[in-house]
Amino acid sequence: MSEKNRLGNFFEDFQVGQKIAHAPPRTITEGDVALYTALTGSRFATNSADTFAHSLGFPRAPVDDILAFNMVFGRTVQDISLNAIANLGYAGGRFGHPVYPGDTLSADSTVIGLRENSDGRSGIVHVRSCGVNQRGQIALEYCRWVMVHKRDPQSPAPPTCVPELPDAIDVGELVVPAGIRLNQYDTSLSGSNELWEDYAAGERIDHVDGVTIEEGEHMLATRLYQNASRVHFNQQSERGGRFGRRVVYGGHILSLARALSFNGLANAFTIAAINGGRHVSPAFAGDTIYAWTEVIAPLALPGRSDVGALRLRTVATKDQPCTNFPYKTADGTHEAGVLLDLDYTVLIPRRA
Amino acid sequence: MSEKNRLGNFFEDFQVGQKIAHAPPRTITEGDVALYTALTGSRFATNSADTFAHSLGFPRAPVDDILAFNMVFGRTVQDISLNAIANLGYAGGRFGHPVYPGDTLSADSTVIGLRENSDGRSGIVHVRSCGVNQRGQIALEYCRWVMVHKRDPQSPAPPTCVPELPDAIDVGELVVPAGIRLNQYDTSLSGSNELWEDYAAGERIDHVDGVTIEEGEHMLATRLYQNASRVHFNQQSERGGRFGRRVVYGGHILSLARALSFNGLANAFTIAAINGGRHVSPAFAGDTIYAWTEVIAPLALPGRSDVGALRLRTVATKDQPCTNFPYKTADGTHEAGVLLDLDYTVLIPRRA
Amino acid sequence: MSEKNRLGNFFEDFQVGQKIAHAPPRTITEGDVALYTALTGSRFATNSADTFAHSLGFPRAPVDDILAFNMVFGRTVQDISLNAIANLGYAGGRFGHPVYPGDTLSADSTVIGLRENSDGRSGIVHVRSCGVNQRGQIALEYCRWVMVHKRDPQSPAPPTCVPELPDAIDVGELVVPAGIRLNQYDTSLSGSNELWEDYAAGERIDHVDGVTIEEGEHMLATRLYQNASRVHFNQQSERGGRFGRRVVYGGHILSLARALSFNGLANAFTIAAINGGRHVSPAFAGDTIYAWTEVIAPLALPGRSDVGALRLRTVATKDQPCTNFPYKTADGTHEAGVLLDLDYTVLIPRRA
Repeated sequence: MSEKNRLGNFFEDFQVGQKIAHAPPRTITEGDVALYTALTGSRFATNSADTFAHSLGFPRAPVDDILAFNMVFGRTVQDISLNAIANLGYAGGRFGHPVYPGDTLSADSTVIGLRENSDGRSGIVHVRSCGVNQRGQIALEYCRWVMVHKRDPQSPAPPTCVPELPDAIDVGELVVPAGIRLNQYDTSLSGSNELWEDYAAGERIDHVDGVTIEEGEHMLATRLYQNASRVHFNQQSERGGRFGRRVVYGGHILSLARALSFNGLANAFTIAAINGGRHVSPAFAGDTIYAWTEVIAPLALPGRSDVGALRLRTVATKDQPCTNFPYKTADGTHEAGVLLDLDYTVLIPRRA
Repeated sequence: MSEKNRLGNFFEDFQVGQKIAHAPPRTITEGDVALYTALTGSRFATNSADTFAHSLGFPRAPVDDILAFNMVFGRTVQDISLNAIANLGYAGGRFGHPVYPGDTLSADSTVIGLRENSDGRSGIVHVRSCGVNQRGQIALEYCRWVMVHKRDPQSPAPPTCVPELPDAIDVGELVVPAGIRLNQYDTSLSGSNELWEDYAAGERIDHVDGVTIEEGEHMLATRLYQNASRVHFNQQSERGGRFGRRVVYGGHILSLARALSFNGLANAFTIAAINGGRHVSPAFAGDTIYAWTEVIAPLALPGRSDVGALRLRTVATKDQPCTNFPYKTADGTHEAGVLLDLDYTVLIPRRA
Repeated sequence: MSEKNRLGNFFEDFQVGQKIAHAPPRTITEGDVALYTALTGSRFATNSADTFAHSLGFPRAPVDDILAFNMVFGRTVQDISLNAIANLGYAGGRFGHPVYPGDTLSADSTVIGLRENSDGRSGIVHVRSCGVNQRGQIALEYCRWVMVHKRDPQSPAPPTCVPELPDAIDVGELVVPAGIRLNQYDTSLSGSNELWEDYAAGERIDHVDGVTIEEGEHMLATRLYQNASRVHFNQQSERGGRFGRRVVYGGHILSLARALSFNGLANAFTIAAINGGRHVSPAFAGDTIYAWTEVIAPLALPGRSDVGALRLRTVATKDQPCTNFPYKTADGTHEAGVLLDLDYTVLIPRRA
């Protein structure tokens, strides 16, 4: 029997400092953008219209940041998380050069931490993943940590190494895409008048709409990113698995949360950072996804009067409208029904 | 609690003469066209092949007219029909400049009529909507009227104003795309030999095929157009709603009816007008859609010997094959199972 | 009642030697490629990234060969197999000029064999179908044979004519795309180190992953190819049909099998021939598809040291993991659960 098929890396295959080039690279196209719109309903004007993007100084409409994120993430799965038990969290995510249709993204990951679990059957792998375009410009980089099975529970534990990760990307490190000027930003075309000055720390926004996920949809999204993690696709094997059914790829929940956030954050034209995030619980076909956002802090950007940043917490739920902003219980754990807890930073025009 | 989310306009928010610019604009791409083909199965040669379109004088394949219609309609929903009880009808629809991949469509609507319902809880809003490309050329315009909830039943009724709308677009106002010459039209590539001269008033065509709709499909289509009307997406809320389930966006039925009509009208290479139309009853996932067409009248186009027009009535049904042309009962109401009653005008080559 | 609708050809409509031009032609776009990726999860680097394809001498990423096959097949359905009882087999399939986004494919078929069945109610039609691009370059050609209903069982049987078809495309007739040089092939980007020298005759590879098909997915795929065969779309009529439900288009199973084969054959960067193939049994929504491959023979290509060929047998199954390589029973018939038995030839780089 051939061993040419790949079963993915197990915990003992990783070493701190190891750098893994992921395959294959991926040319992003207008076709990907159309599918992303059809799968998420995203309406941000900068991603929707070349004309609008051009008026801000973009050569054309950049692709949605979460589409770019999912494309990079998709590259990493085969090497990092094919044998993952859980995708535990994100931190230190920063978006760099915008991604345009025609760009080819490659990705690599560096192992930055390892910690075996006490039962000796699995461990936590921390990686920093980076997506670059065909000119070597960084599109985004982020850290994530996943719990991965050991192939052999008898294999020795590696030295424990847990990386120090920042609570948030510093405002001085946020990238405003080169050449962008927000003075011409036309709020009649973006769908909202609310700009940077209109958001206050502590403000909470219910994004109102809910969207029910179908099996066909989440699998289309996940395959679009060439994410081959089997838990999303194989109903026969998952029937006997942990949840009895296929699990929705967490990145699709990220996409839906960002798309839903348009209703209240229509002018948050780009994501600059993912400070931290957790997929709190799994979603399944049939679940209806809602989201709400708290403004953690408005942030002025050094030297810019045309654009500011908002650090946000967006929470996505399932089967739970967000009128009352469901989040955590008294004991600090997330309420049942919370899917995603995402701390991120967006850019938004300032009032002239 | 923030009020930055948008809950849409209610009946008392509209005034006759008001002009509303819709957001966001939308660049149409080859990705949209591919998805449209996958969602509808449309086979009209002019939309399917650049080479065929070029042989007629188009610079490349224009997008399907109903795709353009749905893209413009999608823009209007947030402002016009988010709180609609029903989308009652269309009239005065006229297609202008063809839409090509790469074009960016913007849309606005002008309120042309208002009439409060007798129960004081809702009213009918008439709008003329217009979609223009990035050069300001009109792609299409049409009137529609919708029944919209009042926010406050106590608010005073506006003066009643019901616009006079034409029964049909006059033949002299139909637009043949500039530069198009149909003398080279190759029927071996279009899939049918029947041209303008072959259709007679009163002729009825059963389009034979039926297509069953899935939840995942109609939601993909509706999001592709960035139509955010909640009744199409939220199974949790619709379970307790009027129909107990998600409603298929009526424009998807239009798309399917046009695609099905290929089998019998393969040379109707473009739609020139929507004279009038009604979504007679709602469709749901699981319904199988059929269509048939009656030729209302062949129309000669002034000064053209290469192309003529056909005024058509296409009726779409659910779970009802159209062998016997289901339409209306003796009392003039539509038969159960009729979804769409569309009076429109197509262009079709004349025999040389 | 109009007879303008097309009901497709019946057995007695075919004559040996008849050549049928299919309508409409189809421009392949990046949108089609994105949808194909989303529907299949294909990860072959040559089709995934313009940069990678360019490094091999392609002007840009060619479309997946099975996408091209399905686009050509889709053209033929209206004329050849609308009234087919079964799609019986393929042989003599050869890929020629690569297909790129922007290319327009036209197709024709020549009837090369006819044999009426003994019951006089149907017969077998053999055709050679050919897909060419807008410059008249052959993209692919293949023979298939289908069992087709007679319109009138009383119509006389045609002379029996059964074509001689080759067991396999001769190695000297395989087309290596012009200008391709594999010396720069970067296995760190393709996802596997295994090249031509690493595959041995008789070797069997389990492709491991399984993917469950949804109704919405197979219909999207089939419509993308403009294949209008009713058995794939109409649940109302199929409920009373042979299987009680919609049948998955066999070409979608081909697509999934090729995509699954990436896990073990990642460097098989193009398909050069379809030597023979059978859809052994039908697939339905809900089925989980698996695949395995046997290396029939490594084949050296005359005059090439950079690239070789592998003749393969890929078997796709439903609800049947392929750890034990399910294939045929002792009596030579296919095991239950086998869907596809495909004998084909791929190109793969040789070790420098």
